[in-house]
Amino acid sequence: MTRYTAPTKDMQFLLHDVLKITESGIPGYDELEADFTYAVLEEAGKISTDVLHPLNTVGDKEGCVLENGVVRTPTGFKEAFGKMKEGGWTGLDMPEQYGGQNMPAIIGTSVGEMFSSANQAFTMYQGLTHGAASAILAHGTEQQKDTFLPPMVACDWTGTMNLTEPQCGTDLGLMRTKADPQADGSYKITGQKIFISAGEHDMSDNIIHLVLAKIAGGPDGIKGVSLFIVPKFMVNEDGSLGARNGASCGMLEEKMGIHGNSTCVMNFDGATGYLLGDEHKGMRAMFTMMNEARLGVGLQGLALSEVAYQNAVDYAKDRLQGRAVTGAENPEGPADPLIVHPDIRRSLMDQKSFAEGARAFIAWGAMMIDQAHRNEDSDADGLVSLLTPVIKGFLTDQGYDMTIKSQQVYGGHGYIEESGMSQFTRDARIAMIYEGANGVQALDLVGRKLAADGGKHVMAFFDLVKSFIKDNSGADEAFDRDFLEPLKAASKDLQAAGMYFMQNGMKNPNNALAGSTDFMHMFGHACLGLMWARMGKAAVDALASGASDAVFYETKLATGRYYMARQLPATSLHLARIQTGADTVMALDAANF
Amino acid sequence: MTRYTAPTKDMQFLLHDVLKITESGIPGYDELEADFTYAVLEEAGKISTDVLHPLNTVGDKEGCVLENGVVRTPTGFKEAFGKMKEGGWTGLDMPEQYGGQNMPAIIGTSVGEMFSSANQAFTMYQGLTHGAASAILAHGTEQQKDTFLPPMVACDWTGTMNLTEPQCGTDLGLMRTKADPQADGSYKITGQKIFISAGEHDMSDNIIHLVLAKIAGGPDGIKGVSLFIVPKFMVNEDGSLGARNGASCGMLEEKMGIHGNSTCVMNFDGATGYLLGDEHKGMRAMFTMMNEARLGVGLQGLALSEVAYQNAVDYAKDRLQGRAVTGAENPEGPADPLIVHPDIRRSLMDQKSFAEGARAFIAWGAMMIDQAHRNEDSDADGLVSLLTPVIKGFLTDQGYDMTIKSQQVYGGHGYIEESGMSQFTRDARIAMIYEGANGVQALDLVGRKLAADGGKHVMAFFDLVKSFIKDNSGADEAFDRDFLEPLKAASKDLQAAGMYFMQNGMKNPNNALAGSTDFMHMFGHACLGLMWARMGKAAVDALASGASDAVFYETKLATGRYYMARQLPATSLHLARIQTGADTVMALDAANF
Repeated sequence: MTRYTAPTKDMQFLLHDVLKITESGIPGYDELEADFTYAVLEEAGKISTDVLHPLNTVGDKEGCVLENGVVRTPTGFKEAFGKMKEGGWTGLDMPEQYGGQNMPAIIGTSVGEMFSSANQAFTMYQGLTHGAASAILAHGTEQQKDTFLPPMVACDWTGTMNLTEPQCGTDLGLMRTKADPQADGSYKITGQKIFISAGEHDMSDNIIHLVLAKIAGGPDGIKGVSLFIVPKFMVNEDGSLGARNGASCGMLEEKMGIHGNSTCVMNFDGATGYLLGDEHKGMRAMFTMMNEARLGVGLQGLALSEVAYQNAVDYAKDRLQGRAVTGAENPEGPADPLIVHPDIRRSLMDQKSFAEGARAFIAWGAMMIDQAHRNEDSDADGLVSLLTPVIKGFLTDQGYDMTIKSQQVYGGHGYIEESGMSQFTRDARIAMIYEGANGVQALDLVGRKLAADGGKHVMAFFDLVKSFIKDNSGADEAFDRDFLEPLKAASKDLQAAGMYFMQNGMKNPNNALAGSTDFMHMFGHACLGLMWARMGKAAVDALASGASDAVFYETKLATGRYYMARQLPATSLHLARIQTGADTVMALDAANF
Repeated sequence: MTRYTAPTKDMQFLLHDVLKITESGIPGYDELEADFTYAVLEEAGKISTDVLHPLNTVGDKEGCVLENGVVRTPTGFKEAFGKMKEGGWTGLDMPEQYGGQNMPAIIGTSVGEMFSSANQAFTMYQGLTHGAASAILAHGTEQQKDTFLPPMVACDWTGTMNLTEPQCGTDLGLMRTKADPQADGSYKITGQKIFISAGEHDMSDNIIHLVLAKIAGGPDGIKGVSLFIVPKFMVNEDGSLGARNGASCGMLEEKMGIHGNSTCVMNFDGATGYLLGDEHKGMRAMFTMMNEARLGVGLQGLALSEVAYQNAVDYAKDRLQGRAVTGAENPEGPADPLIVHPDIRRSLMDQKSFAEGARAFIAWGAMMIDQAHRNEDSDADGLVSLLTPVIKGFLTDQGYDMTIKSQQVYGGHGYIEESGMSQFTRDARIAMIYEGANGVQALDLVGRKLAADGGKHVMAFFDLVKSFIKDNSGADEAFDRDFLEPLKAASKDLQAAGMYFMQNGMKNPNNALAGSTDFMHMFGHACLGLMWARMGKAAVDALASGASDAVFYETKLATGRYYMARQLPATSLHLARIQTGADTVMALDAANF
């Protein structure tokens, strides 16, 4: 049996000590006083611990079952979903007009982390609904919004994203699903979509599929793709449900993890669909969902590493095995707990420093999203767009590695399903793949985002680092040495890599792309380095002002020092690899692999 | 559906071009002419591809079932086991006296790689038999050897290792299983063992359990542990089977992978056991099995990465998605194959250069074992003892990472069980844990092996590297630059880490142990660097002498250049981490995790 405790205190530290959200000038942030955010986070933590997490292994063991076209979710999911609906959690950051609470993304993100930690497979039903609702909100007509948003925000209806087909994943230009225009302005959608999470299930009254398809006679390839709203049940003018539409689940996939979520093959047999956004601009509309989804997936990397870490700590404190090399620490007992051993410590510190750094990174990202939306700040929008592939790719690669480390602490018991540690790794594995496999994130970063707007946004990142160092150095020698110096070095490595791409990517773009994954990782480390420096500074300040909970801040500093000393130097290895270019990577003929 | 093709050609290259085994002067090696080894490897490859691999997913899906104390193995396992027995594969490197073929370990290792690649769960039944037979061979009385070895070498009887108990894994001093001496010289064994692979199954006439237990009244802790032979069925004087012994399977564990292997809770209820080796010297006897088992587990890391890589390559050549950034390479088709993309190449080159380097490392290790045993060479024995935790820990950590990379090439399809890629990762995961979790390997390496015999063996490794560089530099500028320079740098990093341990481990042993996993990994990289330099040299020589298959040797050189340029520099990051010592690792009180 695993446990989950919401890291409310750490979240409060981020919101109020580090990001100082109430002072930010972002509309709506002034209401986010510490007492208020505490209450929201505590409430979300409670449902996570008491309702969602106990169903996590249930979902893994039972999975979903398809019978006569109906998908049965695992025991208890339906009741738990009812409680989620009652709490209004899906609409947390949706407009009040549609029944939401209009809170900023930064709160939705913190709450989302808890839900994913507690039960990722379950949370996806809601997360996809949120994503689909966001796309309708951004691109729908008033009528579409009025029709679909209220029940989706209430989570009475859930949503899905339908992109992938058997022959087409990343390369959506290969799509075959067709949309035939009808006299009444609607379309008939025909084709097959695969890997559709939450495509069919028994927890909502209706399911609103967002489906990419090609309008007959439109341009070839990706330029001919449009986005459609395809409800499971037709919706009458008064909002009541009508006949069943021609969208059905053909089979469920058997997967490595997230068994509690129904992964469907969806068949569209002349299903009625409504154009969402403009004709042939489906990709633009879909990207509204995908960018949000990518941040959400990065969040899953953190979320799974957090819950796995919590359980690894428990086990390391509990399990007696061997003696500390520096002398028994539990002399009365038959052996010392695992946590006395330096290699176990190393592993736990890796996990802890990652999770806390990642949490800060995502909170900062969410804050930039709020700044972009609520203050119409295009610079914030550009920077968070640049960082989106880093959040998705780096945090899920690393998050997965961390769950493996957590599992390893358990030794043989971690390999036994009963411990629950295997499930964390199997569930975390998907986050490296879906919403654009991490290699595609790296390609997006290096091939597109880095040079966007003349490289303005990456320069803004370097300026941020530089001014943070400038503004905070000289006051505390230890802080300068332990935090600012390593950050400076990492930022220098990152700049050198960018310079290498500029100088050598022109000659041959493969010189840049061969280093794309390394660049994504070094960028991720640099971001966590920056966040650790900011958290370190906040901790130093809190201690200097005589904060009551000194142990919390000292622990924060010690954890940051670990990250800066042991993890951040990875940037130099990534740089060394990048600077070898494409020659050795591309040397072989395909036949010689 | 996955496929497996034995890498016979690469193995032949290692045996004859690189290690030049027939010229080595090791007894028995003179018979290993290329034609002969080719015939053995081809035969093993055939049974691997045709018999073992088709049962790999069957084993995963069906698993083992316990009914009324009897374990039923998956469909087809029993018949396949019959074919393995017919081929005499278990006795390949066992003495002729007991029905074996007396071949050296280096052949057994190559064959073992194929079997594990094809079907790890299946191969464990045989591998454990081999391990148990080796322990009886090393420590048994003549009577024990005559009784147990012939049917075990024939694999009519299989073997197991019984160490772990619920409260005791690595720390065997916590063991509770008791052995009560009987008047006839035998013992009554009472206790529970867990995680016993192949503990009970339906493929052999008898199962010979090797069980660690404490003789009543003996010393406390690890010093009171003895090793016992506990047969499932009693063996009559004429070798026929008698009554059922008091050893039974209480339950099967549900695991993350290797479902085709029965992982048993074994209950010993006053079971009759026979002392193997000396009283209270059970650990020494068990280590005979464990060192062999550790090499075998390292081999699994390689084996799983090899088969996963083969399938990733197929998929990357087959799956059309996107266009090469340098211009379409499949202009007639709707898209280019994945393999045109630099990031996919990077991943495949990581996998390929690892598998081939690891194969060379293990072959070299096996050759040292043969040298140690057959020429009674204590230096070879010391060096291979030093390298055993590296082979086990580095190759299984890295091997696992490589299966994850292989799976990633498949995108979403890799997460679906149907592709078979998930199974490779789930099966590979156990190798990082069993036979001593990798953290324990790192502890063994840094805490024990490094300083053994006054550090003589690690010095021997450095001398080997140094003389290889000296003997082979100056002839070929490109080879010096691409292979020898990186090797020199890696060896220098490794020496610096050793120096750091010496200077700082005295003050506080945690300074060494906090860097133990990093050291194990940098040592592994240095070994693969050495092996790649040796393989590179062999390829240069072959090309210079006008070898007919120039493409093979050029591919080998290109793969080696990749490893030296992109992977070997990891040593510098490991060194940087090691040199930060224990301070940040051990900074927190246990309560503050």
